[in-house]
Amino acid sequence: MIHRVLASELSAHVGETVQVSGWLHRRRELKHVTFLILRDRTGLTQAVVPGGTEEGGRAQDIPEETVVSFTGVVTANEQAPGGIELLAPPSGPQIEVLSSPAATPPLDVYRPTVTASLPTILDGAPVTLRHPRLSAPFQLTAASIAGFRTALDTLGFTEIHTPKIVGSATESGANVFALDWFGRPAYLAQSPQFFKQAMVGVFERVYETGPVFRAEPSDTARHLAQYTSLDAEFGFITDHRDVMAVVREVLAGMVGAVAERAAPAVELLGVRLPKVPEKIPEIHFSEAMAMLGLDEPDLSPADERTLSEWALREYHSEFLFVTGYPMVKRPFYTHAEPERPKYSNSFDLLFRGLELITGGQRLHKYEDYVAALAARGESTEPYEGYLSAFKHGMPPHGGFALGLERWTMRLTEADNLRRTTLFPRDLHRLTP
Amino acid sequence: MIHRVLASELSAHVGETVQVSGWLHRRRELKHVTFLILRDRTGLTQAVVPGGTEEGGRAQDIPEETVVSFTGVVTANEQAPGGIELLAPPSGPQIEVLSSPAATPPLDVYRPTVTASLPTILDGAPVTLRHPRLSAPFQLTAASIAGFRTALDTLGFTEIHTPKIVGSATESGANVFALDWFGRPAYLAQSPQFFKQAMVGVFERVYETGPVFRAEPSDTARHLAQYTSLDAEFGFITDHRDVMAVVREVLAGMVGAVAERAAPAVELLGVRLPKVPEKIPEIHFSEAMAMLGLDEPDLSPADERTLSEWALREYHSEFLFVTGYPMVKRPFYTHAEPERPKYSNSFDLLFRGLELITGGQRLHKYEDYVAALAARGESTEPYEGYLSAFKHGMPPHGGFALGLERWTMRLTEADNLRRTTLFPRDLHRLTP
Repeated sequence: MIHRVLASELSAHVGETVQVSGWLHRRRELKHVTFLILRDRTGLTQAVVPGGTEEGGRAQDIPEETVVSFTGVVTANEQAPGGIELLAPPSGPQIEVLSSPAATPPLDVYRPTVTASLPTILDGAPVTLRHPRLSAPFQLTAASIAGFRTALDTLGFTEIHTPKIVGSATESGANVFALDWFGRPAYLAQSPQFFKQAMVGVFERVYETGPVFRAEPSDTARHLAQYTSLDAEFGFITDHRDVMAVVREVLAGMVGAVAERAAPAVELLGVRLPKVPEKIPEIHFSEAMAMLGLDEPDLSPADERTLSEWALREYHSEFLFVTGYPMVKRPFYTHAEPERPKYSNSFDLLFRGLELITGGQRLHKYEDYVAALAARGESTEPYEGYLSAFKHGMPPHGGFALGLERWTMRLTEADNLRRTTLFPRDLHRLTP
Repeated sequence: MIHRVLASELSAHVGETVQVSGWLHRRRELKHVTFLILRDRTGLTQAVVPGGTEEGGRAQDIPEETVVSFTGVVTANEQAPGGIELLAPPSGPQIEVLSSPAATPPLDVYRPTVTASLPTILDGAPVTLRHPRLSAPFQLTAASIAGFRTALDTLGFTEIHTPKIVGSATESGANVFALDWFGRPAYLAQSPQFFKQAMVGVFERVYETGPVFRAEPSDTARHLAQYTSLDAEFGFITDHRDVMAVVREVLAGMVGAVAERAAPAVELLGVRLPKVPEKIPEIHFSEAMAMLGLDEPDLSPADERTLSEWALREYHSEFLFVTGYPMVKRPFYTHAEPERPKYSNSFDLLFRGLELITGGQRLHKYEDYVAALAARGESTEPYEGYLSAFKHGMPPHGGFALGLERWTMRLTEADNLRRTTLFPRDLHRLTP
């Protein structure tokens, strides 16, 4: 039996008769020969079928995206893509059709560039994503999340899996999806925040990589109703700077993993991999406002772009920490800046003009939580389960969350988060 | 500045003055001395505070679960747990309280065994899970999922992240959670089945590790409304046996990762790590029925236990594949057994008496899907997005799903899935 060989492995099999399986990416008919370009998960293979044969005739009738196996002799040919092609074996070319398409794809998977509109791409995702330029971002994503986990594993973190269904819509109040829970109301979790904090009391250092849900009522290029949140939280910190130091390590791990594990996708898309400085530059929110000539409680998207450009000019860094966001704009569990309690021990990380990570130090004393909720006019009752962790001794701790699809969006410099999200969910889109 | 040293690192610092931080696990007062046992993420450290000093007096007032730092001299002492203890430095003992508890835990975290009831453990999870015996299963889980991913990464799989909110309750009909999606009905995904199959058309080999949701109306020890599903799917298979071969590699990877990454938890719990045979024994459903003297379309939990015992006796294996389940009990996308179409190219994996994995070969031709739905009296319309993948050429493929918490349940031989699920969700439990 002849075993399947992948496109990327062919050069090690010159002279052998092998089987290559994949999709018929493109068929090119010349006068005396038909070229079949097969696509498998590692790349393209050119197979040559002589004309004037039965197989040659058959080859002309096979439409693109047919799933085929081709048995042939691996042959070096400088003219062929990659310097290798498959020629018909002495017994004649062997093409086996495994599965035939029943329709024409909404875009030509074989064309080097994609001209289809975003809705066309998204509506036809099960097939349009076969285009190498459209699937490549998801290889960057897979490498990135592996890098995230490895960086944190190395630092002694434990991976956790927490509930996505919660009993009260507490964390931000707005933008939650309501659910029918055996006849009772429940809600989709907007983040694992409360759970990951509680687990600091158990494992000290935890992370979770999973879906979070925001009922975003607005249609923007950078918000979706579900995204993959890379969350980390850890104890025994001095302040938010310890969290920022871990963020730096994680980013370096992610970029390193992309370079190592997704090199073909990086090359295909011409991705500019960012340098992660030993120390990512930072600016305090109050200084940022002074520099921008503003006096606002938060940064607008335009402000974030301006600050990113400044960091690139000033520090040659595509990353910038903005620290000390005003407490009024941060959640109740945020730890204030000890000297200037109007500001917080928190940060955002901007990457290429966009907020990628939010993090900071959290309150860790039970009485501080009670006071923080009282100051916001909130009852402690809906937070009872959450607060129980702090009743029993919690260390100073902090953490951060990174939007995975947003990371890949900025990495590929895409214009829309939907290009780096598999089957995105938004105000209008619930299928495919 | 004296840096923090972890309990597990102390033996490398004998003679040095170091700081150990953690929770006060246990305080033991003798006549002339107080022992403070500190707990950090790596284990326990004994610190010795002489009586008759100011610090000695203070030490007597610190309740268990207080978060403390202790600065002392690392000293070898055969009598001490682990052969190491911290003695007061020349300048006198230094205890810093980082955070004091505001309540007494619902169980004594320091006792070697746990006598609290399951509801007590679950209600107080943010603090009860600090008990080393109660947190250890989650270290097995973290190691297991890492092993799952590494095994599949090695085999060329790509990790994906798919929607947890879907537009129609198609996959099984029953037991879905309904959701208010911007005023429209939507549902929580019961599995990533349709998405992972579609992505076989893109990456050939994919996996996802994420939450799935089942509105289980019954209260059992082995069902929950949310669990972590480890899903894999891949193309260019001959039949379900290729899937079973990957399952075997994945299980070996998981057991290996547990042994390597979670050795302390294995030891603490006395976990019997299973041997994964080079070839896991298998029995066809029809043979199993004959052996059991039954003629049913499915196996009962008792049947599964009987078969597991048989495999242990016959093959010394704690794993058993049952293949060829009747088509009537399998979903519409299941591939029939070519020679006996009443049976399917599917399998369950039993592990220590319990079904752990379900998998098999799927249909891959569009026309077969149309026929399968018609045979069940179903319209293709709600499946349109899903079926579009098959319209465009899909290879023979298959896959499997493994319940992560159930795996750890059997690994630890726990009596209830709630002992290996962080903050479980069921018919009655929506908090903490």
